[in-house]
Amino acid sequence: MVKVLMGPETFIYPMPVLLVGANVEGKPNFMAVAWGGIANGVPPMISVAIRPQRYTFKGIVENMTFSVNIPPSDMVKEADYCGTVSGSKVDKVKVCQFKVFYGKVENAPLIEQCPVNLECTVVHILGLGSNSLVIGRIEEAHVSESCLTDGKPDVSKIKPLGYVTSPARQYQVLGEITADAFSVGAELKARE
Amino acid sequence: MVKVLMGPETFIYPMPVLLVGANVEGKPNFMAVAWGGIANGVPPMISVAIRPQRYTFKGIVENMTFSVNIPPSDMVKEADYCGTVSGSKVDKVKVCQFKVFYGKVENAPLIEQCPVNLECTVVHILGLGSNSLVIGRIEEAHVSESCLTDGKPDVSKIKPLGYVTSPARQYQVLGEITADAFSVGAELKARE
Repeated sequence: MVKVLMGPETFIYPMPVLLVGANVEGKPNFMAVAWGGIANGVPPMISVAIRPQRYTFKGIVENMTFSVNIPPSDMVKEADYCGTVSGSKVDKVKVCQFKVFYGKVENAPLIEQCPVNLECTVVHILGLGSNSLVIGRIEEAHVSESCLTDGKPDVSKIKPLGYVTSPARQYQVLGEITADAFSVGAELKARE
Repeated sequence: MVKVLMGPETFIYPMPVLLVGANVEGKPNFMAVAWGGIANGVPPMISVAIRPQRYTFKGIVENMTFSVNIPPSDMVKEADYCGTVSGSKVDKVKVCQFKVFYGKVENAPLIEQCPVNLECTVVHILGLGSNSLVIGRIEEAHVSESCLTDGKPDVSKIKPLGYVTSPARQYQVLGEITADAFSVGAELKARE
């Protein structure tokens, strides 16, 4: 397999589409973030890489709390909009018609229309260069009742978006289930 | 929309399926990691959350270098296998028949059969609890020539896997392209 050197590039696929929320000067604002992932298991933590110039970042630093909301595929317009305009200029909540609610973490605004909402408190902010890596402890998760199956979140009902950048910047839904994890690889044990 | 409180849970969808590589005592080893994401843009960095007891972690600390390899969907068995057995007990490279090569970063073993390979040097290791968040600077990216379109990586050729845990732990390929990013949201500008 011939390999081509591409230089230092952030080629990770797929990335999640997250709406990160914070109150900025007392008003809820949301930005789209694809550069995020789970950072710890116990206690549960998430990381999101945000440019410190961003309006939402101001609110995160102000309150040391934030939220992570997972938009379903039918909210792709709202998710994209939140990634292209600044809350310093427009009221994204109003434009996107988000119904905002709060849980137990103060100043972590949650979007009712998103099937999954995580309330987070900041444990670290790491300046890495162009971005600051915000690591938050997940204090509570809310899931829409309509997206549960036998009491557990069901991705086939949540319909999360993946974000890919190559060759074009686009949103993709999840497709076919390829295999069960912690199971399909067992076949290779015969080769040990 | 009725919401159900689920407690503090790491509900992020989708997560990527990554094979993280390191040389442990001079021999290449790979583990499957879903808890990872882009951590910085300039310079490019990635984060992976690894339990410090893991064999691969030993090699990362030993050399302060590691690799990230993206398995295509037809390597789901190998990816799963690498997530279920320890390199302290078996030679995963042999069992999975990985062809290993190296780039410019020493002790960062790359898997030829994976269409995307990132060579990384460690910039931070953050103990967060059950996991250590390893933040690596991406020094070089290799992409299989067969997975390029007009000189750029093409996810429709790379065929990466997404990992989801709810309601079952499973691998899913990417599906339909929903919309173009930095574009579809523009429609909402009329509401500003």
